[in-house]
Amino acid sequence: MGTMKGNVLVGQSGGPTAVINSSLAGVYAGAKAAGAAKVYGMRHGIQGFQVGQVVDLDAILKGDKEIELLKRTPASFLGACRYKLPAVQKGSEVYEQIFKYFDEYGIKYVFYIGGNDSMDTICKLYDYGQLIGTDILFMGVPKTIDNDLEITDHTPGFGSAAKYVATMTKEIILDSHANDTKVITVLEIMGRNAGWLTGAAALAKGEDNCGVDLIYFPELPFDMAKCLASVKKIMETKKQVTIAVSEGLWEDEDSHFFDEISKNAKIDAFGHKELSGVGECIAKYLGKQIGCKVRAVNFSSIQRCGSHIASKTDVDEAFQVGKDAAKAASNGVSGHMTILKRTNDEPYTCVTEIYDVHKIANAEKKVPRAWINENGDGVTEEFLNYVRPLIQGEILPFMVNGLPAHLTLPKE
Amino acid sequence: MGTMKGNVLVGQSGGPTAVINSSLAGVYAGAKAAGAAKVYGMRHGIQGFQVGQVVDLDAILKGDKEIELLKRTPASFLGACRYKLPAVQKGSEVYEQIFKYFDEYGIKYVFYIGGNDSMDTICKLYDYGQLIGTDILFMGVPKTIDNDLEITDHTPGFGSAAKYVATMTKEIILDSHANDTKVITVLEIMGRNAGWLTGAAALAKGEDNCGVDLIYFPELPFDMAKCLASVKKIMETKKQVTIAVSEGLWEDEDSHFFDEISKNAKIDAFGHKELSGVGECIAKYLGKQIGCKVRAVNFSSIQRCGSHIASKTDVDEAFQVGKDAAKAASNGVSGHMTILKRTNDEPYTCVTEIYDVHKIANAEKKVPRAWINENGDGVTEEFLNYVRPLIQGEILPFMVNGLPAHLTLPKE
Repeated sequence: MGTMKGNVLVGQSGGPTAVINSSLAGVYAGAKAAGAAKVYGMRHGIQGFQVGQVVDLDAILKGDKEIELLKRTPASFLGACRYKLPAVQKGSEVYEQIFKYFDEYGIKYVFYIGGNDSMDTICKLYDYGQLIGTDILFMGVPKTIDNDLEITDHTPGFGSAAKYVATMTKEIILDSHANDTKVITVLEIMGRNAGWLTGAAALAKGEDNCGVDLIYFPELPFDMAKCLASVKKIMETKKQVTIAVSEGLWEDEDSHFFDEISKNAKIDAFGHKELSGVGECIAKYLGKQIGCKVRAVNFSSIQRCGSHIASKTDVDEAFQVGKDAAKAASNGVSGHMTILKRTNDEPYTCVTEIYDVHKIANAEKKVPRAWINENGDGVTEEFLNYVRPLIQGEILPFMVNGLPAHLTLPKE
Repeated sequence: MGTMKGNVLVGQSGGPTAVINSSLAGVYAGAKAAGAAKVYGMRHGIQGFQVGQVVDLDAILKGDKEIELLKRTPASFLGACRYKLPAVQKGSEVYEQIFKYFDEYGIKYVFYIGGNDSMDTICKLYDYGQLIGTDILFMGVPKTIDNDLEITDHTPGFGSAAKYVATMTKEIILDSHANDTKVITVLEIMGRNAGWLTGAAALAKGEDNCGVDLIYFPELPFDMAKCLASVKKIMETKKQVTIAVSEGLWEDEDSHFFDEISKNAKIDAFGHKELSGVGECIAKYLGKQIGCKVRAVNFSSIQRCGSHIASKTDVDEAFQVGKDAAKAASNGVSGHMTILKRTNDEPYTCVTEIYDVHKIANAEKKVPRAWINENGDGVTEEFLNYVRPLIQGEILPFMVNGLPAHLTLPKE
């Protein structure tokens, strides 16, 4: 590890995860190990920093107890934003302001923890830095429950969300089997464009659980008629049917099942339709067609912020990608992101590397067609073998008065 | 403890909880300790038993490992039902069939684990038994996340659901505070007629969490205009507002905010109206009126079957009410239910007693008006002091391959 000369700034951005703060702890620990003078945090990412909102992390992370508590705290400790920096050009007021603040706080190292939109931010800061010939170094640290970042084997945050989804799926399946009556349960799971987390529901299956019966991915067009036929077929031998669906299901042009809900859909920055309620929509339709009880369970934000059953593998890797980003920066690396590289399947081993962040930002990694079964309604063994190591191990919350304790910013 | 002469039959009924199987384990352990010859389980409660569906529990619960795993398994291990026995009268075919099966299996002790509807079942079996002069003894064992049983200080199942609701509420509040933008989060919580579980969301508040801002109980009529005014007031000083609402909110006759959703409400076997979607309904309205982002989170069945963070106090008490019901029956008691009696507040201590089940069945214990704040939108310290002891302690799941393992019935 090199030596850091100057101060460090770290920010978080995008949707919360169970382990984004473990990466923050990692960056902090790595920076301190490299001799960083002071470590500051951006309040609410680059958007808050732009207006001078800075947190003195040294005053908060005083010892190992705080670091460990931070690792066990879900959602963005520093606060996040969903803000896209403007195009890089000399004289841009936005960048001038940001770099003015960098100077004011003596910042020589900037870390940004987030998903693909956040990597766009670190790219642009790096590019602007190049343009004006700065000596400030910029590093990205991956995070997203969606697991849709390119190049990295997987993203920190995904393992814990997958563990939570699989755990809840197991428990809900037991619940739905309690009564000896026909019931269709539709689980709506996050991941608008990539079905990694939806597919993780398949992990519920085992010797003590019959698992989900059908899984529908945003990688493939959804066909309601085909789904109905599959459910009918399954119900010939099984009273309780469980279906996992991605929140981002879509249809071919000649299908119009989602028309009603898509009328109200918002369009996101990339032109994608933001549907909501596909699970309930499918459940209601199936209930009507088949004439049985249905239940739609939307895991909603619970799946990304539930850290009380986080994966230890995930927490540890999240810490490592943060720490190793600091290490790389201390060695003079800039414009890169730490990635995870799986070095062995069984036993699972994984190391970090660094990779040009420009080649990662704004790209999406989807579930390969070969990892979805032929019928398009389940996963293959390869998918399971890929995900299973990522949910292993538990890191227990610090329980205070019967509830998980969290580290939070002092009141402003 | 007396000695049990003859065989034992135990059933489960009503909605699943995280600890209903701990009560089953308790009944089993108590019966065995009292020397019961064989212990059978009703498959799918009295409804399944009526058609001869019986499980040999001795063949499954072979040792302490199985008992401990059973305690950690959510939902009804034996399966449940929602079935109301007909009125008690001599010559009733239903009762004749049931008592014929009792004789066939040499049953001398019947235990039924459930909520108030299930206690109606145990009452009727007892009454029919009296009518025909049986020597079979009948005991009720309380269970319900709703905590709405009379006489008992609280019900097993409530503590774990409360712990789960409070944990998720803490985590969701962190999630909603991540971005520096206005957002209203509405949490819809179970408890159609009693607001115990909804009130438990108040436990989230502490030195590391600002807690929920408003809580609306099914004990009081909901007033949308007043709620809107409260939210506007809170938003003068706080960007993120979190509201906990009971799924069973209702309005005074002259209010019509819920008209649309109540049109579609189903009526269950016991005459209860099954509303759904009040949380989303309120969230949408607030979003439109205030002009900000809203999020509706429905804890759905997750809150009753999530056993991966069960309360140890609850698991232990659930076991105890089961075991002590067996003990009472071994001493010749019949027509009673075990109740929990709090003997001290701090430190919390609690013992079991027995109580005439006829005085408990079909009655509902609601949150006392004095435990809801004057404004009708929060809880008092007394409510918190009542609930807090019930969520203390954790009982860790047996984790296998990264997920909680459960005990399940052998495939039929």
